[in-house]
Amino acid sequence: MAPRSSRNPPVRSEARPPIVTLLTDFGTQDVYVGIMKGVILAINPHACLIDLTHEVGPQDVTAGAWLLRSAVPHFPTGTIHLAVVDPGVGCKRRGLVVATREAYLVGPDNGLLSPAAGALGVRSVHAIDVPGLVKKRVLGHSISQTFHGRDVFAPIAARLSLGDSPRMFGKRLAGMVTLGLPASIRRAGSLMGQVIHSDRFGNLITNLAGGEIEKLRRQTLTAGFSHPEVSVSIGGATIPRLASAYAAASNGELLAIMGSWDLLEIAVRGGNAAERLAVGRGAPVKVTMKSER
Amino acid sequence: MAPRSSRNPPVRSEARPPIVTLLTDFGTQDVYVGIMKGVILAINPHACLIDLTHEVGPQDVTAGAWLLRSAVPHFPTGTIHLAVVDPGVGCKRRGLVVATREAYLVGPDNGLLSPAAGALGVRSVHAIDVPGLVKKRVLGHSISQTFHGRDVFAPIAARLSLGDSPRMFGKRLAGMVTLGLPASIRRAGSLMGQVIHSDRFGNLITNLAGGEIEKLRRQTLTAGFSHPEVSVSIGGATIPRLASAYAAASNGELLAIMGSWDLLEIAVRGGNAAERLAVGRGAPVKVTMKSER
Amino acid sequence: MAPRSSRNPPVRSEARPPIVTLLTDFGTQDVYVGIMKGVILAINPHACLIDLTHEVGPQDVTAGAWLLRSAVPHFPTGTIHLAVVDPGVGCKRRGLVVATREAYLVGPDNGLLSPAAGALGVRSVHAIDVPGLVKKRVLGHSISQTFHGRDVFAPIAARLSLGDSPRMFGKRLAGMVTLGLPASIRRAGSLMGQVIHSDRFGNLITNLAGGEIEKLRRQTLTAGFSHPEVSVSIGGATIPRLASAYAAASNGELLAIMGSWDLLEIAVRGGNAAERLAVGRGAPVKVTMKSER
Repeated sequence: MAPRSSRNPPVRSEARPPIVTLLTDFGTQDVYVGIMKGVILAINPHACLIDLTHEVGPQDVTAGAWLLRSAVPHFPTGTIHLAVVDPGVGCKRRGLVVATREAYLVGPDNGLLSPAAGALGVRSVHAIDVPGLVKKRVLGHSISQTFHGRDVFAPIAARLSLGDSPRMFGKRLAGMVTLGLPASIRRAGSLMGQVIHSDRFGNLITNLAGGEIEKLRRQTLTAGFSHPEVSVSIGGATIPRLASAYAAASNGELLAIMGSWDLLEIAVRGGNAAERLAVGRGAPVKVTMKSER
Repeated sequence: MAPRSSRNPPVRSEARPPIVTLLTDFGTQDVYVGIMKGVILAINPHACLIDLTHEVGPQDVTAGAWLLRSAVPHFPTGTIHLAVVDPGVGCKRRGLVVATREAYLVGPDNGLLSPAAGALGVRSVHAIDVPGLVKKRVLGHSISQTFHGRDVFAPIAARLSLGDSPRMFGKRLAGMVTLGLPASIRRAGSLMGQVIHSDRFGNLITNLAGGEIEKLRRQTLTAGFSHPEVSVSIGGATIPRLASAYAAASNGELLAIMGSWDLLEIAVRGGNAAERLAVGRGAPVKVTMKSER
Repeated sequence: MAPRSSRNPPVRSEARPPIVTLLTDFGTQDVYVGIMKGVILAINPHACLIDLTHEVGPQDVTAGAWLLRSAVPHFPTGTIHLAVVDPGVGCKRRGLVVATREAYLVGPDNGLLSPAAGALGVRSVHAIDVPGLVKKRVLGHSISQTFHGRDVFAPIAARLSLGDSPRMFGKRLAGMVTLGLPASIRRAGSLMGQVIHSDRFGNLITNLAGGEIEKLRRQTLTAGFSHPEVSVSIGGATIPRLASAYAAASNGELLAIMGSWDLLEIAVRGGNAAERLAVGRGAPVKVTMKSER
């Protein structure tokens, strides 16, 4: 997570409307998100505004961080990701502009940006100097204590989309508050992980990556066992193999599958695994290799 | 639903930003939809992305098909409609590009696209040749088993928005999986239908069209009855006439009205008909003509 | 709310894509909002469409009016705000185009637009002459009884975004249906108000403005009391001071704070005040000044 050189900032072609994504815990029943968009468009009317999600659980920084990290690799170079899940608003927590090889990240320094920044490769981290920016009239003179999304982060995202450099907004920092996703634990012949996200379909996304499971398989082969087959235990249930597709299971069947993030997912074909197993985020998952010698 | 000539593909003016609509069952609490938008904008930064809805019931192809069919007639010529309700993802089900007189439809071949295609007038249906497109590098080399919205349908919608022809994506097909909306049944002096959608207001939208009810009225007149008046039975209640507007009923009153799709709707003025009658999709509706000889 | 001169209509630069915001009670599970956007883009493909919210409670004109009024000051000059919460659709209620110094407002004449119009400064109010506009083919020939959002308001918003004058749509009116937000009551040493909105976080937004509380404080000083300190009573609880930030309270603590609209808000640090106090919109709030002589 150590910042690298910022000599090569993200390139933005003038012809492409600059993309600003928004991820918050503001929900969509209020007009908070709409207001942030108004603020951005007042500064850069050509910004292309894309919602990632606004239904992060209220003040759930970890969930927001994970969702942001999932989304950022799929956006083109030059995208500005504005993220606000901010229980410390009005407090001493800093605001950040993070430049990566591909994108800018703007939001509070509470870990929300760190997994995404790590995935994209950090080039520089700048603190947002709110009083200085108010003095320079980059920010309005009345900054609320409760809505920095509107008063601080949205204007800065808009200015980045106009081509302003992160240096404009405050001092360079040596690092940022980081928030690791939980690590998995490898034992002889098994891998312990946990559920990091339960999606709308009740699919349970774990922190166990395809590469880790492959390593475990090779380890088992090296140990002289043949035909190692993955077995997954979660919520009292055991799934005896990895499925190649949802549709490879019969209707209502519990299955384990490498999901679209290359992470192990537990699902029910045509159903809801979170409900079936009565588990959610944080639930332990164990992968073992069954094999014959 | 038989494909017609594709000699005249939908015209798109270069000056108009091409519209890509999105309809899914992905919900908005995850970032799946945002990711699809990132993928599209990485290919065509000028695409204008419009959400139809992402709250189709999980894997409810019929509801998705009906909602898509409701929306498509209101978009300008050249619009690309991307729809993903896809319980068969990763299985043998095909992906489709459907060209109609006015628009393109992209999504799984499971009936989701068929009512919309029928309403717009099909010109051609092409299968999406995923392995061939991976080889030609039109699609990325790692196609997930679970998220063809991101890996297959979004890139193809983006390329259509750049002007690519449906022929680019696979072989022409003679037809597609079709999903008829339920037909109504006409008897002497009555019409039997059903609720096909219950909206946010609890309005119950039926499959009984204005034209069918008009036919029934004329039939009744022809049979020598005068002043035929529609009467609607649903969920144990009988509504003795058609209202001309919600506001023509008194507050809390149950009413039957020709809705904005020219389909018979059952509503409660200032209330919720689905709750009042405790009925939902599939509930039978009967229209009879009361008259005097 | 009396209309002023409309000699200087809102200026829109041709280079800026015109913004059309949408606020409705249509929800997002149906495609009603998507359809309105299709109608707008068919008329003006360069419109920039921004959702304020579509989750106004069904037919809750007051809530919609308040949300709209909160959002409009943050949008740039020339924005067109399209709002539809319309229990009287199909009835005699008029449709309106309101020109303000900064923006246009389009929607039903049921009070929905009035707080926003008041906040922006009304220049002119025009009734929408539906039959006349159908005759002139500005509107389509079949106007539904139930969906003026699609058939009337969206086309007019689109035409305003192309530069059409409000005069095009109907006769000028002397006024409009107004909907005041509830007034506060000032007594000696106290201020009575009420909750006007409960947001996603359970924050309770009241109708008590910073200026009113400041006046009360000065009044107390003038009366010879020193160190006046605000105390807030709501739902059986008393909060002995104003907090300077959410984060100034300890976790789980109830706090009173001047919110992002310069209105008094009641919140729970890291929690939900609406749930804690079991109160919602309309609940009375009392501000008193504690002081020493």
